[in-house]
Amino acid sequence: MNVQECARLLAERDRFLIVTHRRPDGDTIGSAVALCCALRGMGKEAFVYPNPQVTDSYMPFIAPYFAHEDYEASCVVAVDVADSNMYANGFSGKVDFAIDHHPANTGYAQHTLVMSEKSACGEIVLLVLKEMGCPITPEIATVLYMSVSTDTGCFAYSNTTAETHAAAAELIAAGADFQHINKALFRTASAARLQLEAMIFTNLRRYQNGEVNIAIVTLDMMKKAGTTEDDCDDLAALPGKIAGNKISATVRELTENHCKISVRTGTEFDASAICRKFGGGGHVMAAGCEISAPPEKAAEMIAEAIREVWK
Amino acid sequence: MNVQECARLLAERDRFLIVTHRRPDGDTIGSAVALCCALRGMGKEAFVYPNPQVTDSYMPFIAPYFAHEDYEASCVVAVDVADSNMYANGFSGKVDFAIDHHPANTGYAQHTLVMSEKSACGEIVLLVLKEMGCPITPEIATVLYMSVSTDTGCFAYSNTTAETHAAAAELIAAGADFQHINKALFRTASAARLQLEAMIFTNLRRYQNGEVNIAIVTLDMMKKAGTTEDDCDDLAALPGKIAGNKISATVRELTENHCKISVRTGTEFDASAICRKFGGGGHVMAAGCEISAPPEKAAEMIAEAIREVWK
Repeated sequence: MNVQECARLLAERDRFLIVTHRRPDGDTIGSAVALCCALRGMGKEAFVYPNPQVTDSYMPFIAPYFAHEDYEASCVVAVDVADSNMYANGFSGKVDFAIDHHPANTGYAQHTLVMSEKSACGEIVLLVLKEMGCPITPEIATVLYMSVSTDTGCFAYSNTTAETHAAAAELIAAGADFQHINKALFRTASAARLQLEAMIFTNLRRYQNGEVNIAIVTLDMMKKAGTTEDDCDDLAALPGKIAGNKISATVRELTENHCKISVRTGTEFDASAICRKFGGGGHVMAAGCEISAPPEKAAEMIAEAIREVWK
Repeated sequence: MNVQECARLLAERDRFLIVTHRRPDGDTIGSAVALCCALRGMGKEAFVYPNPQVTDSYMPFIAPYFAHEDYEASCVVAVDVADSNMYANGFSGKVDFAIDHHPANTGYAQHTLVMSEKSACGEIVLLVLKEMGCPITPEIATVLYMSVSTDTGCFAYSNTTAETHAAAAELIAAGADFQHINKALFRTASAARLQLEAMIFTNLRRYQNGEVNIAIVTLDMMKKAGTTEDDCDDLAALPGKIAGNKISATVRELTENHCKISVRTGTEFDASAICRKFGGGGHVMAAGCEISAPPEKAAEMIAEAIREVWK
């Protein structure tokens, strides 16, 4: 299905339920809300599935569009959902449309629009809405700006493209309240998160003249900082922020004597080779594994595994 | 002077020296290097004034274009320089062209092109280069991307506009190595800076249910963290990052018993009114003052002044 077909087929349907993915992020939420608003603007009935995993910072954007319990949809649209293990199992085999940018989309929906070259699903939704002739209102522009900005780390990640910036330019010109999104999502952190980061950098382990950095996150640190799961996004990126870093690892204590390890590298080293030593794997620059040991011991084991590949 | 006139007049000249401002940032450096490269591409002689305040992270971009001591320029161009107190006093009265986006540009140059609606001077340089018919090479695109991204905090600050994103889209399409710039300038911090931030958040003082946050930065902390002046950019922004913050202050010990205070507020409170109590001032949302007291005492005095305006 291409953008034109998707727009035409959606225009023929009504009573939409739009589904977001597990642990929903700004892209799936922004895409869902934008599509919901636009369909309503066309005189259709549309609601968003009340995903119970939406975190506090996103709730104000999506909650007003949550479907009531007794809403009976006749067309289910999944946005930014790569496979059918989306939040509610009840949707298996019942998804009419999937709009997505994940190359690994499994084709679980009846009609699938995948554009894997797009940084964010919101960029594809923008194309579909324009093809349907929907006006891009300031409200729609704001949530689509949320999509493209969150999936690219506010345009700082390497998945950003010229088209991402062109979409942002178009959305800001259409009245997106990008200042609110930027302040709320990129320039603010919870006090607990900032306390946890402070503890992490205070206890950082540095090796090889500072080119290897290992962060340890214990259950005790999380308790002292008062963090919830919401505060623990992307902890794996922290030690790699240090200037000169070449290999970083984050050791996170999941339960007593059991840790999850995330390894990040530049182009010089293979993160997955390091993690394979412990039965894990992943990509060349980002991989993971689990080690059954207390965090300090797990950190030593990872440091030793890194020492073995160091050249 | 408008863009067309600026392009025409520059094309008539040769033997350029391009001047950056004091404590040069990514915008003045990116603008200078881009203009220098483009003029050389037109077959002209062009160098950049070797500003001694360029910091390590920017040196690789600008150093290859530094003028030798005995270079005799016949046309001096200042970029992103608001007034004539640019670095070297020797330029007073000798600047032929100023290209700038500061509304407060004092008109110190013979010919001035000011476009104050632009987020970055680099956006104006891009317009001038295109008007001159210069090809936007990947090298030029990279340093102009540095201009627009640094002056907008990687598109997160409120001075970002649709045109900023449109310029970024154009520069990335022209081959800007934005991934290198983003990694080097936005996703990396020195170990000393991260240690200092950790200490700041560990010792944060919070009042009014966490809506007032005061950071203290002592000379002792800076010594322990091993920071240099380069590591201390924008410390005033740190306590305001906390979710729910309404008034933040950063107390920085300059010398024993003497502190500089930066106050930041949202729209509800007047930062300059708080600072005026101590003989300082500034803008409604960003103001400063100095207090002759040890940092702990100065923080208490600021907390008390905030308590007086709290409603």
